[in-house]
Amino acid sequence: MQRNVAVVGVGQTAFGEHWERSFRDLFVTAGVRALEDAGVGGDEIDAMYGGNMSAGQFIRQEHVAALIADYAGLATEGVPATRVEAADASGGLAFRQAVLDVASGASDVVVASGVEKMTDLGSDETNDALAGSADREWEVFGGGNVAALYALMARAHMNRYGTTRRELSQVAVKNHRHASGNEYAQYTNEVSAEVVESTPYVAEPLRAFDCSPASDGAAAVVVVPAEDATAYVDDPVYVEATEQASDSLTVHDRRDITALDATSEAAERAYAEANFSPGDIDFAEVHDSYTIGEVLAVEDLGFAEKGEGGGFIDEGRASVGGETPVNPSGGLKACGHPLGATGVRQVVDATRQLRGDAGTQVEDGSVAVTQNVGGTGGTAVVNVLSDGGSV
Amino acid sequence: MQRNVAVVGVGQTAFGEHWERSFRDLFVTAGVRALEDAGVGGDEIDAMYGGNMSAGQFIRQEHVAALIADYAGLATEGVPATRVEAADASGGLAFRQAVLDVASGASDVVVASGVEKMTDLGSDETNDALAGSADREWEVFGGGNVAALYALMARAHMNRYGTTRRELSQVAVKNHRHASGNEYAQYTNEVSAEVVESTPYVAEPLRAFDCSPASDGAAAVVVVPAEDATAYVDDPVYVEATEQASDSLTVHDRRDITALDATSEAAERAYAEANFSPGDIDFAEVHDSYTIGEVLAVEDLGFAEKGEGGGFIDEGRASVGGETPVNPSGGLKACGHPLGATGVRQVVDATRQLRGDAGTQVEDGSVAVTQNVGGTGGTAVVNVLSDGGSV
Repeated sequence: MQRNVAVVGVGQTAFGEHWERSFRDLFVTAGVRALEDAGVGGDEIDAMYGGNMSAGQFIRQEHVAALIADYAGLATEGVPATRVEAADASGGLAFRQAVLDVASGASDVVVASGVEKMTDLGSDETNDALAGSADREWEVFGGGNVAALYALMARAHMNRYGTTRRELSQVAVKNHRHASGNEYAQYTNEVSAEVVESTPYVAEPLRAFDCSPASDGAAAVVVVPAEDATAYVDDPVYVEATEQASDSLTVHDRRDITALDATSEAAERAYAEANFSPGDIDFAEVHDSYTIGEVLAVEDLGFAEKGEGGGFIDEGRASVGGETPVNPSGGLKACGHPLGATGVRQVVDATRQLRGDAGTQVEDGSVAVTQNVGGTGGTAVVNVLSDGGSV
Repeated sequence: MQRNVAVVGVGQTAFGEHWERSFRDLFVTAGVRALEDAGVGGDEIDAMYGGNMSAGQFIRQEHVAALIADYAGLATEGVPATRVEAADASGGLAFRQAVLDVASGASDVVVASGVEKMTDLGSDETNDALAGSADREWEVFGGGNVAALYALMARAHMNRYGTTRRELSQVAVKNHRHASGNEYAQYTNEVSAEVVESTPYVAEPLRAFDCSPASDGAAAVVVVPAEDATAYVDDPVYVEATEQASDSLTVHDRRDITALDATSEAAERAYAEANFSPGDIDFAEVHDSYTIGEVLAVEDLGFAEKGEGGGFIDEGRASVGGETPVNPSGGLKACGHPLGATGVRQVVDATRQLRGDAGTQVEDGSVAVTQNVGGTGGTAVVNVLSDGGSV
């Protein structure tokens, strides 16, 4: 990178079913909170990025970055507003493009945001829109929706490595427990493995409580050149690396359906760029759109050996208080998963942790990873963030 | 910018109604042509950007940058693939983000592409998808589609400045004439003003031949650091500036409906960055999605005084051979307008002109502007490109 970059402000709405609030309201709330947190005025913003998967289908609106710039009062300032999309990795892309924009020297103060309004459609229409993250021609027309495709991965992982149904349940149990301290989470109730396993199958072996919910919500962060960061706040968070990788969109074309190569490729590059190894990571926010996704992430990010992710979680090593806490926020499962917002929300939560003001706080965390996946793994974004103690 | 950037390869499909070719086929054709033109192999590509407005609605597919990376054989290399969207300025965003990516130092060889497959839907569905570039809640629900909103601008411009129906016709006449030498254009037939004025009203005073068509097509360019450009090709084109601005999404919230402030704001920044004035520009590719759009562009880019754009075009000053040729390619009107592809196609055509190998060639052109608009003006991207003679 030509310039290093830091996060100086974060904000989000509560995630959930916001029947009474519009797409644009959600964004503005998150954006204003991030600006207030950074102590930045609207007239200081040089550019903004908006991660959004499917407003075209959910609310029949494209051109949404200009729309949110307009509602945030930035359009009349001519602030460039760029929507980025890679299914539910759209938020991760928004953060990464904001970092590249500052690194390029084109901008100094950039807002990265993500927003999705999913609950305006019925569930059939919502599921059909979601299927647009998979390959419509080769997977969806043949009956493969996203849940079914993750179910294939789960089944293969169980067969090859002995991952158990109970280990999948423990992902949901842990993430609900972590979310109990998170005031922005959609679900703050605890659940037991027995409850998870009593919910109906969505796509065997995955049950309803293996799935993140449909959610409305928005998140935003403010990034600036690292050298200027302490002029804004006392506790900036430094972007040690932001990397993105692609893989085949279809699951059947993958090298191995028990791993997401896009995650491991992006992670490898990010660790090299940041000069860290997986053992240096104190905690992680990962993409558990389905519980199996967290098992894969724990392995593909290098916290556990391939095949041992389920056990790692089941043994409490991914819990707050354990070796490498995973999803201390509650993850997508309990925070909710407004598709385009999630990748930004992960950075918001990692920043709160690194500042020491998270709802469910990790002790002595100074280096974090966030991992955001598009669809079944066609895209992954991996960021390494730190409190600067190790820089 | 931290690093200067150059274009070393361009490619496109013919624009038109490609009933026999899919979205992914179109992109791959354009991408391969751009790589061949640059003499770059797929394994040299560090990142790609894809401009696309509405695949979610046109072909019910999101996550399209990963899809096209996959079909281009780049996904298994893990190449980051980022879709950007701002209605029909999506291609302009793709080019700009590719430039920022190289400028940031994150990547050295980046492909910017744009693609749209519009003809798979019926015209009612297509028009409804297009309306997603305007404000669905405040404009479209009230009956204001994009053509109607441009018609308001045209009527106001006629009333205030005396712009005539004949001057609007001359935009179409000139652009069809220019396209007659362009092998990639959708329409290479010449039309007379009388023919334009005999076509039915779409939204009075705009007639069918004031409107760019619905098109399928793709375009791609390869960008690299300027300092490396001559290692790829003998005739690189240098990016002197790339700027983007927003304005209110709704036309009724604009400062003035006879101008696109997003264009003039982006142009002002781009001229300052490139250290050029409008008088230094030898030719321009501008956004004539409706004929009035070219009149506004000629004014907002500073080639003519406000209110005098119609006369400028009618007097032949915007024709090849005139003072500042505008749309020597044929523009959106005659090239066709596959929404997400257009902003990239403009860079392709400007590059061909600057190299001296365009179908309808401008004499002694060494500095070009491209201007790409989203919807009715909520977004504009303005690039200044040169052959390096003035650098």
